[in-house]
Amino acid sequence: MEPLFATDQTKALVPRIREFVLNELVPLETSEHLTGNFSKVAAILDQKRELVRKADLWGLQHSLDEGGLGLSLCEFGQVSEALAWSPFGHYTFNCQAPDIGNMELMHKYAPEPLKRRYLEPLRDGHIRSCFSMTEPEFAGSNPTRMGTTAVRVGDDWVINGHKWFTSSADGSAFAVVMAVTNPDAAPHRRASMILVPTDTPGFELVRNISIMGDGSDHWGSHAEVRYTDVRVPATNLIGGEGMGFVLAQERLGPGRIHHCMRWIGISERCFDLMCRRAATREMEDGVMLGEKQFVQGWIAESRAQIDAARLMVLRTAQNIDQFGAAAVRNQISEIKFFVADIMLNVVDRAIQTYGAMGITDDVLLPWYYRHERGARIYDGADEVHKTALARSILKEYGLDTKRNKPADLAAARA
Amino acid sequence: MEPLFATDQTKALVPRIREFVLNELVPLETSEHLTGNFSKVAAILDQKRELVRKADLWGLQHSLDEGGLGLSLCEFGQVSEALAWSPFGHYTFNCQAPDIGNMELMHKYAPEPLKRRYLEPLRDGHIRSCFSMTEPEFAGSNPTRMGTTAVRVGDDWVINGHKWFTSSADGSAFAVVMAVTNPDAAPHRRASMILVPTDTPGFELVRNISIMGDGSDHWGSHAEVRYTDVRVPATNLIGGEGMGFVLAQERLGPGRIHHCMRWIGISERCFDLMCRRAATREMEDGVMLGEKQFVQGWIAESRAQIDAARLMVLRTAQNIDQFGAAAVRNQISEIKFFVADIMLNVVDRAIQTYGAMGITDDVLLPWYYRHERGARIYDGADEVHKTALARSILKEYGLDTKRNKPADLAAARA
Amino acid sequence: MEPLFATDQTKALVPRIREFVLNELVPLETSEHLTGNFSKVAAILDQKRELVRKADLWGLQHSLDEGGLGLSLCEFGQVSEALAWSPFGHYTFNCQAPDIGNMELMHKYAPEPLKRRYLEPLRDGHIRSCFSMTEPEFAGSNPTRMGTTAVRVGDDWVINGHKWFTSSADGSAFAVVMAVTNPDAAPHRRASMILVPTDTPGFELVRNISIMGDGSDHWGSHAEVRYTDVRVPATNLIGGEGMGFVLAQERLGPGRIHHCMRWIGISERCFDLMCRRAATREMEDGVMLGEKQFVQGWIAESRAQIDAARLMVLRTAQNIDQFGAAAVRNQISEIKFFVADIMLNVVDRAIQTYGAMGITDDVLLPWYYRHERGARIYDGADEVHKTALARSILKEYGLDTKRNKPADLAAARA
Amino acid sequence: MEPLFATDQTKALVPRIREFVLNELVPLETSEHLTGNFSKVAAILDQKRELVRKADLWGLQHSLDEGGLGLSLCEFGQVSEALAWSPFGHYTFNCQAPDIGNMELMHKYAPEPLKRRYLEPLRDGHIRSCFSMTEPEFAGSNPTRMGTTAVRVGDDWVINGHKWFTSSADGSAFAVVMAVTNPDAAPHRRASMILVPTDTPGFELVRNISIMGDGSDHWGSHAEVRYTDVRVPATNLIGGEGMGFVLAQERLGPGRIHHCMRWIGISERCFDLMCRRAATREMEDGVMLGEKQFVQGWIAESRAQIDAARLMVLRTAQNIDQFGAAAVRNQISEIKFFVADIMLNVVDRAIQTYGAMGITDDVLLPWYYRHERGARIYDGADEVHKTALARSILKEYGLDTKRNKPADLAAARA
Repeated sequence: MEPLFATDQTKALVPRIREFVLNELVPLETSEHLTGNFSKVAAILDQKRELVRKADLWGLQHSLDEGGLGLSLCEFGQVSEALAWSPFGHYTFNCQAPDIGNMELMHKYAPEPLKRRYLEPLRDGHIRSCFSMTEPEFAGSNPTRMGTTAVRVGDDWVINGHKWFTSSADGSAFAVVMAVTNPDAAPHRRASMILVPTDTPGFELVRNISIMGDGSDHWGSHAEVRYTDVRVPATNLIGGEGMGFVLAQERLGPGRIHHCMRWIGISERCFDLMCRRAATREMEDGVMLGEKQFVQGWIAESRAQIDAARLMVLRTAQNIDQFGAAAVRNQISEIKFFVADIMLNVVDRAIQTYGAMGITDDVLLPWYYRHERGARIYDGADEVHKTALARSILKEYGLDTKRNKPADLAAARA
Repeated sequence: MEPLFATDQTKALVPRIREFVLNELVPLETSEHLTGNFSKVAAILDQKRELVRKADLWGLQHSLDEGGLGLSLCEFGQVSEALAWSPFGHYTFNCQAPDIGNMELMHKYAPEPLKRRYLEPLRDGHIRSCFSMTEPEFAGSNPTRMGTTAVRVGDDWVINGHKWFTSSADGSAFAVVMAVTNPDAAPHRRASMILVPTDTPGFELVRNISIMGDGSDHWGSHAEVRYTDVRVPATNLIGGEGMGFVLAQERLGPGRIHHCMRWIGISERCFDLMCRRAATREMEDGVMLGEKQFVQGWIAESRAQIDAARLMVLRTAQNIDQFGAAAVRNQISEIKFFVADIMLNVVDRAIQTYGAMGITDDVLLPWYYRHERGARIYDGADEVHKTALARSILKEYGLDTKRNKPADLAAARA
Repeated sequence: MEPLFATDQTKALVPRIREFVLNELVPLETSEHLTGNFSKVAAILDQKRELVRKADLWGLQHSLDEGGLGLSLCEFGQVSEALAWSPFGHYTFNCQAPDIGNMELMHKYAPEPLKRRYLEPLRDGHIRSCFSMTEPEFAGSNPTRMGTTAVRVGDDWVINGHKWFTSSADGSAFAVVMAVTNPDAAPHRRASMILVPTDTPGFELVRNISIMGDGSDHWGSHAEVRYTDVRVPATNLIGGEGMGFVLAQERLGPGRIHHCMRWIGISERCFDLMCRRAATREMEDGVMLGEKQFVQGWIAESRAQIDAARLMVLRTAQNIDQFGAAAVRNQISEIKFFVADIMLNVVDRAIQTYGAMGITDDVLLPWYYRHERGARIYDGADEVHKTALARSILKEYGLDTKRNKPADLAAARA
Repeated sequence: MEPLFATDQTKALVPRIREFVLNELVPLETSEHLTGNFSKVAAILDQKRELVRKADLWGLQHSLDEGGLGLSLCEFGQVSEALAWSPFGHYTFNCQAPDIGNMELMHKYAPEPLKRRYLEPLRDGHIRSCFSMTEPEFAGSNPTRMGTTAVRVGDDWVINGHKWFTSSADGSAFAVVMAVTNPDAAPHRRASMILVPTDTPGFELVRNISIMGDGSDHWGSHAEVRYTDVRVPATNLIGGEGMGFVLAQERLGPGRIHHCMRWIGISERCFDLMCRRAATREMEDGVMLGEKQFVQGWIAESRAQIDAARLMVLRTAQNIDQFGAAAVRNQISEIKFFVADIMLNVVDRAIQTYGAMGITDDVLLPWYYRHERGARIYDGADEVHKTALARSILKEYGLDTKRNKPADLAAARA
């Protein structure tokens, strides 16, 4: 824990979470559970969820008016890091994406009947949900390009479209779908968010896309979904019509903090594994791996980088808490690529430290190597964030790189 | 093909191999075949082997006196690159490790009866084999530390030991086992190579180790093997007693070329995928991914690096052909870490170019990302080769870093 | 300024310092002043010092009992960053190394007569001083190896030795010399610090070593010094006998913060130059340099790295303020290599952004490129700090890499 | 020497050149000669030139019909590497840029009277010359943007313009000036090359630009030049009117090889210095610097990279010899950024290996650090070559990134 950002809440909570994760979740990290489908481990984790409830650690993310602890984003970030010590932490504590994002969104913007019917069981961990935005035909880096439409027909929305990377769709009770409702509006006002129960006719889970060797079902799924004349009541709208991007943006600040602190937790875990190995692996008689300068270099650089990453994210979180996400847009971009890069480097160094064992599923490392490579891609590829950050900075220097929009002029052919 | 090293043989062979790989093997790269156990695709590949025979392309690696083409190492390297355009190339052409190494070894050093009984069906692709050297209890970077023993009892060797990363053991007809036969000899004269049929009592395939998410059976297996009072005839010795390390070393030069040229083939394949994506993926209206400088940078750097890697390997191969491996030991170390690093960078850049699709098993890239991470580890971790190379160079400058052996003095605590 | 660490003092001071630096010092950055000897600009800077006094900004580093502002280390760090916007900032404000370190040291440990005679005019900027520790014959990374001796003869110390990188010696009134006084004590108790007026017979400034193309005289000198039977009163001892290393260590924590914050100031300055160039340089008709993704990448990565560096340093400073340097030894190691590397990268990217102009002395960048390359070397090479940090971490994991000290082992060899 | 490219000529020449450089030039590398103006050392080098003539090593670059050795480009590349062992090698052997390029150009394209008057004394080393192309107002990466004009008035050209980085102008007998003669032609047909004696009225050497701390006069100068109504005979045209770019392009292939092989020579020299230091510098009792893995890593990586760089350049040279520069345009781009980057890394690692001494002018390293930073900039910034290479590759994949030229688009915007 970084003392600079510790609060009474985090000082009390984090050690309890850590202990739970170490005692209940780390022992589950067997080759069997670390490979193949998530459903293999889900039933066990559901039992662990009961222990979380008994330990009175359920619902850490909830606001005071939801009966939660009302943690600030900066505080919850520290919780998220502690959960990330195990790949099963967030799920077990019901703090996993995309559910946590859906909960926040619905808490603020869903009409009461939707809350009662969908948000409450979601909070209680009785159902799961998914977020259906990315489309295979369009580059995710430009969310204004979207093919899915929702047309108002009487009191219903009729939705048609093709999505993928609808993460966790398999087994979900409902999806929050991003669809164009106002095709003639300005680009950022075209889409809306609509709640679609997955048992609605026309909702077709085409397949769970195999990712990095895993079929990845259940919460671990990344689904391709087709919406064909899917009909839901007009009241299933979350937020207002045309508010899709605004809400997606609003989701982004906290979501970034959640992700980044999870990455830092992963980094710390791999760092710990690396140090354990270095301290105990004998290379020659009486010479331990940790005495090699190459390994010392990895340890030192990792330590400094992880520390830097945490400071960057928690400062951003605190700033969001104080000034709002809009005020620190640049910092929210910064941490995306800064932290993802560090995490993947730490994972890689840890693997190298383990040698042959490091590529086996006898250790946790390949799980992160495979499942977190996406960190540099999802939520906006690193390159997109770098460009956005630089453009924002250059604007302060008088250069408006968007003055001629690329779409109009194809001028991005830099 | 690099004209500098092209010969009449390679000019004739390489295009034919490429065509075969493109037509017969590339179409097999489906999500189904690229995930899970190798046995899922093995039967199909065995059919393709028939086509290889019909095309008169079987046995490309064989020497003239084996009835083969007698390709030089430099020529075969170019063949190996062409095969590597598909992850199934080497297996289909029966040029896969560890069989190819075992074939070379046995051709030179096995007694005639062993050749007839094991080498001939291996050449014909009727059986498979494995090489059993690495042990979980000892760092692979120091092969003189080994726990497996073979004791002469009458006309037999009685073998006891514990190995892992006995690659391809699952389904193999025999293993070439490295075991200490002369414990009191100098470190490099202690071990011998002994052929052990896998149906010998006491040979126990404990498990196929799960690697990077794959159970990995059949040729794709990396097995943990236990040898308990395994008894084989004294005549199963390959080469002389105490010759284990000498033979392992001899195997190393050609083996390195095979590996490195395979990595270059992989790099070229991923480079091709990256360019295809860049040329065809639209980011905004009329703006293609390949117009982005970040992507252009990846393409340019990859192109230069792959070219450099190929020149390095083929020059080393040609030097081995001309002067023998011992004369260019440093070059053989150089290419290990130089090429592995480049390959993994190209794979990574290609994934990033594909965005979300790049982590799905809909494309080939995750297969390489998962299965080739080991390249920086196996066959001596990169760090070991860097150290060896530097020490050899510094010796020319008068510094003998081994004058006080680390084992004696623990002086490596650098 | 980072709001997280801003205080009333820094909020008031930093803008005033910045304004002074921008108005008075930045205009001095001409090719003439940025090349060759420091004496070319020293006279001008001495005039600027008068303006500093008039602006009541003199002596920012002094403690309350010295009549100063009593800034905490974390606060002074922020001042140091502001001064570093110009290469002439620290000198002009009399906060330059090594004088600032000597002032701190003498304030705490010098006997009163030495203070009156040397410290007071030093504080007033009437004299300069140097610190004489590094020796050409011994690796600076191991300060227990030292050839300079001070032998007690009657009421005097008689000093003999050979030093270099006695920075700023040229024109200094006195040197603080590190010399072995107790050769038979434990390694870290052998040396003492002794004040030697430079006009003492036997003190020979052999030469100002030419550094990166500059003869570098005056405050900018890095001198080779020979001490031959240099005789000074016993009362010229600073701190107790054998306390040399303890004092050098104590000096290290604050010194590291000063350096690192200076490097961050340099980074910010170069970042600013880079952005100005990117925003205003036309590459083709209507296409500005800042529209190129390569340049955007440099800007974005630099921005994130500098922010991270500042957080790292100021957190360390605050921790030193609260817990003392000994408690955060690891953080003090971390920031050394972390920040030096980032600064040099930012300098390099800025040069590349300027193209041909970037290597001319028409811009400030080559000054930093040449004069700050040493940052990865002095004050302990980065590699030394990485090793120290890793060893400290591994000790927590049970591996004591110093249990067999190389020096002991080497002895054991004999 | 790389055996792959060695010829009878290079086998005979290179050792003789190396010996000359070692015996005659390396001893000149004193702090005095490595700092400040080139004129400090020029007189001594002119004496060494006499020794070159006596050793019958003068004019290594000349073609057979010039009475030279007729070395192929690949052979001369190897000579260039040998010369680069000293920073004074190329000058002493009269193979220095820009004279060598001017000699080639004039040999092929200058009218006979110009050859007699200017080329002959240039070959003999009696005069020097410069090449006047880059302009401060326009980005060098786009040579079609140029402000200097030459207008035909009677039998003369009247030249007006402003140039900088007219390297070696100080003391030159003539400049080859690039000027727009046909402003209405297609962009690449607008400019011509015209020989201008530097004593022509209106030729003003404004200043020798200070570069990286050096005033840099004589051959080492990088001059700012103003042409004001400079009048030269129409017959001073080199090649045809409008042929400026074609000739500049033609110059580029061989020039690239010269530069790159020089960089490789520099890399080898610094590598040698690094190894010497590592083998002889004691860090602790009995522990040499070269026993540290960090240093071993630098040595190993440098060795591999330099080998790769040499293979890349010599293969390109051989291909230019065989197929012409146009056929291997991509390779000529590749080696630019590939080799420059490697060289600068090797220089940097060597400095770090020397510690504090590494930044002093007591060693050669800072000379390269300062004077070769430009390698990533001049002759087209690395980024320009990466972009050009990627675009050329992507064209093969069907993406023509120039189909809408930015310049055209910008016009379209208006």
